[in-house]
Amino acid sequence: MEIIRYPKREEWPDITSRPNLNYEYLHDIVKEIFIEVQKKGDRAVKRYTKHFDRIDLETPSINKEEIEQAKNELSEELISSIDTAYNNIKYFHESQISSSHKVDILPGVQCWQKDIPIEEIGLYIPGGNFPLFSSVLMLGIPAKIAGCKKVVLCTPPNEEGKINPALLYAAQKANIDNIYAVGGIQAIASMTFGTESIPKVNKIFGPGNQYVVAAKLYSTQFGTAIDMPAGPSELLIIADDTCKAEFIAADLLSQAEHGIDSQVMLVSWSEKIINEIIESVNKQLKTLDNKEVIERSLHHAKILLTLNKDEAIEIANFYAPEHLIIATEHDDYLADKVINAGSVFLGEYSPESAGDYASGTNHTLPTNGYAKSFSGLTVNSFCKQVSFQRISKQGLTSLASTITNLAKAEHLNAHVNSIRIRLKD
Amino acid sequence: MEIIRYPKREEWPDITSRPNLNYEYLHDIVKEIFIEVQKKGDRAVKRYTKHFDRIDLETPSINKEEIEQAKNELSEELISSIDTAYNNIKYFHESQISSSHKVDILPGVQCWQKDIPIEEIGLYIPGGNFPLFSSVLMLGIPAKIAGCKKVVLCTPPNEEGKINPALLYAAQKANIDNIYAVGGIQAIASMTFGTESIPKVNKIFGPGNQYVVAAKLYSTQFGTAIDMPAGPSELLIIADDTCKAEFIAADLLSQAEHGIDSQVMLVSWSEKIINEIIESVNKQLKTLDNKEVIERSLHHAKILLTLNKDEAIEIANFYAPEHLIIATEHDDYLADKVINAGSVFLGEYSPESAGDYASGTNHTLPTNGYAKSFSGLTVNSFCKQVSFQRISKQGLTSLASTITNLAKAEHLNAHVNSIRIRLKD
Repeated sequence: MEIIRYPKREEWPDITSRPNLNYEYLHDIVKEIFIEVQKKGDRAVKRYTKHFDRIDLETPSINKEEIEQAKNELSEELISSIDTAYNNIKYFHESQISSSHKVDILPGVQCWQKDIPIEEIGLYIPGGNFPLFSSVLMLGIPAKIAGCKKVVLCTPPNEEGKINPALLYAAQKANIDNIYAVGGIQAIASMTFGTESIPKVNKIFGPGNQYVVAAKLYSTQFGTAIDMPAGPSELLIIADDTCKAEFIAADLLSQAEHGIDSQVMLVSWSEKIINEIIESVNKQLKTLDNKEVIERSLHHAKILLTLNKDEAIEIANFYAPEHLIIATEHDDYLADKVINAGSVFLGEYSPESAGDYASGTNHTLPTNGYAKSFSGLTVNSFCKQVSFQRISKQGLTSLASTITNLAKAEHLNAHVNSIRIRLKD
Repeated sequence: MEIIRYPKREEWPDITSRPNLNYEYLHDIVKEIFIEVQKKGDRAVKRYTKHFDRIDLETPSINKEEIEQAKNELSEELISSIDTAYNNIKYFHESQISSSHKVDILPGVQCWQKDIPIEEIGLYIPGGNFPLFSSVLMLGIPAKIAGCKKVVLCTPPNEEGKINPALLYAAQKANIDNIYAVGGIQAIASMTFGTESIPKVNKIFGPGNQYVVAAKLYSTQFGTAIDMPAGPSELLIIADDTCKAEFIAADLLSQAEHGIDSQVMLVSWSEKIINEIIESVNKQLKTLDNKEVIERSLHHAKILLTLNKDEAIEIANFYAPEHLIIATEHDDYLADKVINAGSVFLGEYSPESAGDYASGTNHTLPTNGYAKSFSGLTVNSFCKQVSFQRISKQGLTSLASTITNLAKAEHLNAHVNSIRIRLKD
């Protein structure tokens, strides 16, 4: 972990720069698979699953019995934990349902907005040894609260052609309509075009490796919407003398565990606490399972010593981290100054792990600086806001001169005509 | 206008297909201008303005006096119309401000969301003979209601290096911070990288020709967000026997006037009213100024005769029009069934022109089928929703087993550690 003492403002861009995410080198393979899936549907999916996942599946569809039996393979403990996480995430996301009301602009001019769910949603969940069933909840719950008509999930099969039972149970719990054992570029292509088995969807959500991200970006060319372009996970912690060094050290370590490209940053105006945290990181590291991943990730972690707390939050806003932990005295003062962050954790008992799994907030958050302009997932991400208006003859009469004057100035004569013809008598 | 009688469902994709919007052929010119602007800043902007707009400008910045004097060049009538439109648009968009409340998930586990404005916003307004000052209001008003810190506007200069005074007045009215006389790809590149005069922004909004759209799409590679990819404007009208044929004809004509590539569609289950509308279109067309544009656009317009009103709204949802006019008896029945549309106009005195200019709703709406997954612009489009959480020791104790069980199942041991270390005593 590199310590940077009192970085000058002109050094900030360099210090906060991210790994360059350019997927152009994957263009050819993505394009090839998209063309094949569009042309040959299930047959192409079967071939790519055989090639990439080394399993020859008759059909990508997971049948109902397999989903229902998944629960039997899980411990009572895990079932009950998934159920609790489900309840908390559902409870928080239900609070995001917005109510709409009609606005009387003028007598006879009524305008309003309505949240309408996006009809067909595709969720992608990566495979591998560590099944991200928590992401199934984070994606599936808000989709169902929004009221999406069809929610399908694609995830790669393991070498026996199976899906991890915890993932199946989470999907069943979240009421996901259909599950398909298909991964990678071919999964995104299937949801973009539709195959005999897998439906075409309007919007694709979910994490994935560089192949999946490149495929999601490519799918937007065919009218598919995507949640957001995702990069490596990020955590920035602002800590002062009042924090418990071992708690902050544990948070830095747990962020580093996400992968060797995880972004870890600590900002403080106390050199004393920085040294205590580093010491605690080194001590705790020895006891952890994923030591090698953590060490590689911490290798490019950064510790910034700032002049004061205002400069600390300024750097945080400049970086725009996915996760921001504020572990300081008077944390409300800094919380009020947050401009760019995906999710903010306040106080010493709010570790990132809580938001990753169980407190209720969504863990699908903007990375790579996108927190400057993107939100994490909410129920809104699964809806469109459609505007409506109803105008009476009296209302149109009141608006008429405004509309016709503006239309005339924009040289749109037929627009003027559409008003005049209605009010000619 | 082609009449298609009782189209079969398998014909719908073909009937509702849009012009293919592929901007790959512009890739080289966009890339070249981006590289030049990134390297040479204002010098490159000056050169491209001279080349494309045929004017050699000392600086792209429009000074305060020019903006303040713009009002003097406008008629009282136009000023008052811009002011009225401003008030109505502001009033409707203020109703979109959402309130947030803290949610107690469990005792000691509090989560909430906060709408935080995107800091720096860039607006693009096309030039040409018909200045779209209405778009200045539609973009600038919600940006300022959201509370964006800096809102800048780029628009190409005319041959004297000037900006249309109505556009300048609308920008001043909307409190836009800075205005620059720069258009096309070089404007988007300037707002993507920043130059000596023009600031880098976080998100770019606004309409434009194919060069501008291609440049906006390209700018997303550099971390810039954009409102949405825009295609030609669209209107679908559902009408029955109870509508006034001449009103509907006027609406079809005003939509056709937007440009030769405008998409115009009429859907009805009454052959009688279809014939009356066509007759009225032909009659009114003779009296209009932009006759040539309208005729070219109507050439590819489509009229669909459906079995009944349910099939009519199904086709409308399948097409997902930018604008949807419902001019039928019991229009509430059909309004309730709207799934995919940008903005919906109900009743015989609600022409699209009202929403284009003055009723209060936003006219920046999803085209090209994007209404299936995108909203039109709202105050939300200028904000991010950031989640916050504060957990007490008691709260974390309640969540502990859920978090640790799930983290263990995902093999994330350092996550388990971040909980245990906090609760070890």
